[in-house]
Amino acid sequence: MLDQFFSPRSIAIVGASSNPEKIGYAILKNLTSSGYSGSIYPVNPGSSEIMGLKTYTSMAQIPGPVDLTVIALPASKTPDEVRECVRLKVPYVIIIPGGFSETGEEGRILESRISRAIAGSGTRIIGPNTVGVYFPHTRVNTALTPPDRISFPPPGNIAFISQSGALGLLTMDSISEYGIGVSAFVNLGNKLDVNELEMINHFSADPNTGSIALYLESIESGRQFFDLIREVNRRKPIVVLKSGRSEASARAASLHTGAMASDDRVLNGALCQAGVARAFDETELLDYARVLAYAMPFSGNRIAVVTTAGGVGVISADLISSKINGIGLQMASLSAGTKQKIRESIVAFGTAENPIDLTADGSLESYDRVLSALETEPEVDAILAYALPQTPKMSMEIVDVVGKHINSGKPIVVGVIGSKLGKELLIEFERKKIAAFPSIHRSVKALKALHDYGKFMKERG
Amino acid sequence: MLDQFFSPRSIAIVGASSNPEKIGYAILKNLTSSGYSGSIYPVNPGSSEIMGLKTYTSMAQIPGPVDLTVIALPASKTPDEVRECVRLKVPYVIIIPGGFSETGEEGRILESRISRAIAGSGTRIIGPNTVGVYFPHTRVNTALTPPDRISFPPPGNIAFISQSGALGLLTMDSISEYGIGVSAFVNLGNKLDVNELEMINHFSADPNTGSIALYLESIESGRQFFDLIREVNRRKPIVVLKSGRSEASARAASLHTGAMASDDRVLNGALCQAGVARAFDETELLDYARVLAYAMPFSGNRIAVVTTAGGVGVISADLISSKINGIGLQMASLSAGTKQKIRESIVAFGTAENPIDLTADGSLESYDRVLSALETEPEVDAILAYALPQTPKMSMEIVDVVGKHINSGKPIVVGVIGSKLGKELLIEFERKKIAAFPSIHRSVKALKALHDYGKFMKERG
Repeated sequence: MLDQFFSPRSIAIVGASSNPEKIGYAILKNLTSSGYSGSIYPVNPGSSEIMGLKTYTSMAQIPGPVDLTVIALPASKTPDEVRECVRLKVPYVIIIPGGFSETGEEGRILESRISRAIAGSGTRIIGPNTVGVYFPHTRVNTALTPPDRISFPPPGNIAFISQSGALGLLTMDSISEYGIGVSAFVNLGNKLDVNELEMINHFSADPNTGSIALYLESIESGRQFFDLIREVNRRKPIVVLKSGRSEASARAASLHTGAMASDDRVLNGALCQAGVARAFDETELLDYARVLAYAMPFSGNRIAVVTTAGGVGVISADLISSKINGIGLQMASLSAGTKQKIRESIVAFGTAENPIDLTADGSLESYDRVLSALETEPEVDAILAYALPQTPKMSMEIVDVVGKHINSGKPIVVGVIGSKLGKELLIEFERKKIAAFPSIHRSVKALKALHDYGKFMKERG
Repeated sequence: MLDQFFSPRSIAIVGASSNPEKIGYAILKNLTSSGYSGSIYPVNPGSSEIMGLKTYTSMAQIPGPVDLTVIALPASKTPDEVRECVRLKVPYVIIIPGGFSETGEEGRILESRISRAIAGSGTRIIGPNTVGVYFPHTRVNTALTPPDRISFPPPGNIAFISQSGALGLLTMDSISEYGIGVSAFVNLGNKLDVNELEMINHFSADPNTGSIALYLESIESGRQFFDLIREVNRRKPIVVLKSGRSEASARAASLHTGAMASDDRVLNGALCQAGVARAFDETELLDYARVLAYAMPFSGNRIAVVTTAGGVGVISADLISSKINGIGLQMASLSAGTKQKIRESIVAFGTAENPIDLTADGSLESYDRVLSALETEPEVDAILAYALPQTPKMSMEIVDVVGKHINSGKPIVVGVIGSKLGKELLIEFERKKIAAFPSIHRSVKALKALHDYGKFMKERG
């Protein structure tokens, strides 16, 4: 339904500018740098060419059909421009500027003028008050951000829908460091027209999307929203970061995107009933979305940990098995046969008990054999496997070793610590779509998200 | 007391080797690459030169006095070598190999032979079962890790004492990414002789050390330990990551460093009484140690947040003011006068309520004026200031702007999100010793550690 929005054949940017002080500069710059292969039509009454592109004095002058118009003008000029888009039958309009309902009465009036302009038409509005969208698969980047400040992620499997633009851009910048990709990023802004419901619907059927990450400050049509996420989450995992939990932050949210916060306890109960993971910051949001997109959910409690560093195993065991400051699952008790197999696979002073410690002498061959032993162990529901760079026998090949076992019955989450070989390992795991996380706690929490989803699916999915 | 250990004039490496398969290779390689200016004496009966250094057939052949000997031989050969060190009056011996009490009875016998060898002598043992030490101020690096796998941090203010070697190396590798430094790293290993008590004592008087980060799997002399940390923590903040909280992990710890775990509730109570921060993973350990080393502790509950991204402010408000999934402090209610000052400093559609949102149009001049307004606001106890890279007006100069206010009465913790300009900002904040953290949650939790310490100091310090 929104397919044309995600794969536009042509994009007009109204307010495109060669002046870096104007918002129409950054947007055009990002779009022209993104490798987008459709037609780009800058619109600016005062220019005939911007960034080497023929520029039109108005939307009406554009020769071909326009699938997507991005409005980068002050708020006050927006309703007229929307009316023009309706007249020209432009199906999708992104309204970038702020200065609408989030700022008070005057802005609310502007929004209602836009609503009236599109009423009964085929024109849909994204925004206003948005930094735009980023679709790496079709190379559409209308982001309102200076091109040199942040990195954009590669094509990937997480659909990222954010009510806040900056939070979205910053989070994409963060994950880019590890080569983590998105299938699409949409900043909903004030949600005058298109809201999270349609986006979730779209991504639920999108073959590029493995999971949906939502940052929301308000929820439109609560009942419909919950019915929808309950239904979609069973097919495609959803993670929600919903702010405005406290009074102070709910007030702040209303000033930010005009959002009216709902009762947080109601939300919590509804997410729980729908089996939807809740994140509490941007890191959790993308970590959970990633593990759910890549790894196999599991419903049991029993975790096996494989490490080449004893301390990392011990801390993991704490975080796995503690209810307070931990995830409250269990360390698997390995059967005698599995322990024997492990003992035969590792060095004499290694530990065949869980957490299994291959020690600094642990070779990749040992690692491979230990994973094989765990695969057939009925006492184990999931594996937390560490790829730690401090030992001589660790190398990039660990990615292939883990890769061999990733689809052999037991879910595997990988933990990595470090910034040198460690960073390279994280990037390579990501390239192979193996869920790897850069700290003990983040690895363990990702495991919990995978467990909770698996448990929900088994019991109520 | 341990000064000579941290500033040795000469170091002997027994078992130094030119064979990369041997542990004596990595250690000598790291030491010769570290810029250490004292004498290095490789000892190996089969070589006359290793890595361009004259090599001695035995400790006894070394011409000058040896302040520190590193033993990189198999466990079984270690007691004899220690006896030789005692005879030669070597004050400090690091025993690298494992294969001692952590592996069972045979290893315990070897340890007791070493204990007997040093009894009544002036020779002190660090280890066995240790990856060694790293002292950036004196450029001593005896780390057992291949030189190309991990990064070592620059000289800094955090003394990092770890019972686990790998966890220490990996954590140092992680913090190096942001240029975060340590005053020293010591891997205690099996703690046959020197333990955390002496280390804490030393660092409590070390002018390079601003805080002490401890990773422990066992605690020696519990009563003495608690008396010591209670006393030292008042002068120099201590953070403890103690594993073995659960039964499974306690058993794992005993297999890792031979540690006997204590009752975790007793520990928790004692840390609380001593006002010592407890971390639950390696990230928290170094985050808390860093904020306590750099920033001013505070005892009040009222936090002001300054942001240029509304969503980041809203999520921060949630995490600050929520008891569940948050730190349970308060968002400050700004006085009318302060709000007026802020309103006059920011753009019209910015938010003068807390969280204060300068919006994407927020300039560094605005930021500066907002911080000035908050500085004199009696309703604010501490400031969480975000430096977010997605807007055109953000630049590296934000570091100087925050720097101007860092000592003006209100503690400031900085949050940064992002991997491009964001990473540069984090590194620059670190260079200026301003505590900055790369996610919302980590920034907020650091703020809590600073608050808890300040509150403890006010009430009972």
